[in-house]
Amino acid sequence: MKSEKISELTTKRLSVYLRCLQTLNRSGIHTISSRAMAEQFHLNSAQIRKDLAYFGEFGVRGVGYQVSQLAQHLTKILGLNLLHHVCICGAGNLGRALCDYAGFNTEGFKIVALFDQDPRKIGTLSRSGVPVYDIKKLKQVVRKEDVDIAVVTVPADAAQKVVDMICDTGVKAILNFAPVRLRVNSAVKLKTVDLKVSLESLSYYLSNPASPVAAHPPE
Amino acid sequence: MKSEKISELTTKRLSVYLRCLQTLNRSGIHTISSRAMAEQFHLNSAQIRKDLAYFGEFGVRGVGYQVSQLAQHLTKILGLNLLHHVCICGAGNLGRALCDYAGFNTEGFKIVALFDQDPRKIGTLSRSGVPVYDIKKLKQVVRKEDVDIAVVTVPADAAQKVVDMICDTGVKAILNFAPVRLRVNSAVKLKTVDLKVSLESLSYYLSNPASPVAAHPPE
Repeated sequence: MKSEKISELTTKRLSVYLRCLQTLNRSGIHTISSRAMAEQFHLNSAQIRKDLAYFGEFGVRGVGYQVSQLAQHLTKILGLNLLHHVCICGAGNLGRALCDYAGFNTEGFKIVALFDQDPRKIGTLSRSGVPVYDIKKLKQVVRKEDVDIAVVTVPADAAQKVVDMICDTGVKAILNFAPVRLRVNSAVKLKTVDLKVSLESLSYYLSNPASPVAAHPPE
Repeated sequence: MKSEKISELTTKRLSVYLRCLQTLNRSGIHTISSRAMAEQFHLNSAQIRKDLAYFGEFGVRGVGYQVSQLAQHLTKILGLNLLHHVCICGAGNLGRALCDYAGFNTEGFKIVALFDQDPRKIGTLSRSGVPVYDIKKLKQVVRKEDVDIAVVTVPADAAQKVVDMICDTGVKAILNFAPVRLRVNSAVKLKTVDLKVSLESLSYYLSNPASPVAAHPPE
């Protein structure tokens, strides 16, 4: 397996392929060609072949891909064969929603802790039973619960301070929802999801209906 | 102004530039070069020049960009000089969190309605005072409230049905959070944000720390 640097767009597409293969698997389909897969899920067959060839030879000429075998490979490539323990910093609306959101707290990911500085929230549980800890106990709880991914849902003006605290715990991967550009040291991977950017992209489309923006895989 | 098709990655970068210019404006900075802007916000100066040149000549050689003027241009290009009325279909955790999320319900966007099928939710208000309507009244409320963007936060198995209902109202832009591939007619722009894909991208990074994924603008 190659270990060169691949783009986030590629990892996103691998995630999409994995969803498609899981759907096929549930439908009892054992093999599929890149062309049939592209047609069924509105993807690009040449792109599928290129992306998958990068990680090795998964297809058999004239037969296609073995659905469950390829799904297993992609699961492993994406590191989803391991269970990641996730904490969420910021027990406000968004933090609690993500905590209880079935699309988030599932396969490969387990949300084990919420953090906040509000004494009224500390000591409570989310709907799904995740405890809210004092943000001052971040390092201690991260170690005890073996957290390896932190999600940031605090307001923009508090985000850098919280990210610094997370870096100090040794956690190497941060998903940030605060609409602000943050600094981390080079050993930490920071990914920012600015939900408003998606709305602005739609706003652009509505203002330029004659020039539809090019299609991209889901984010 | 050109009206060719530009990619979603470009519109995302325009959103990022707009955020940066707004920050500069608040700091009382009137002009900035692409190089200084790139340094301050960790962007690529050649990319900034290329992206902005596409929409016209905004910079003055040796002086740089006029901050507030360029911000106004980008606001107009992104269609943010108009107020978009947004509805959210699905008044569960995620839908209500987005409704009350300051980073969402702001500049250029106003959330005017939530929809659900649960009788216990219909007729209530979100924390920020947005009413929850019966999803059966979607068409009626969308017309009355002049909604032009719909957000989908229903479970995956209900999403296609809700998207079909939205298309039937004449709304032309949909932001979907359900982790499923949906079909719309060609007149409608559908953007899917799969929050789990972001986690999976971090999972890939943790499994391949020697091969950091390439940086991209925030999403």
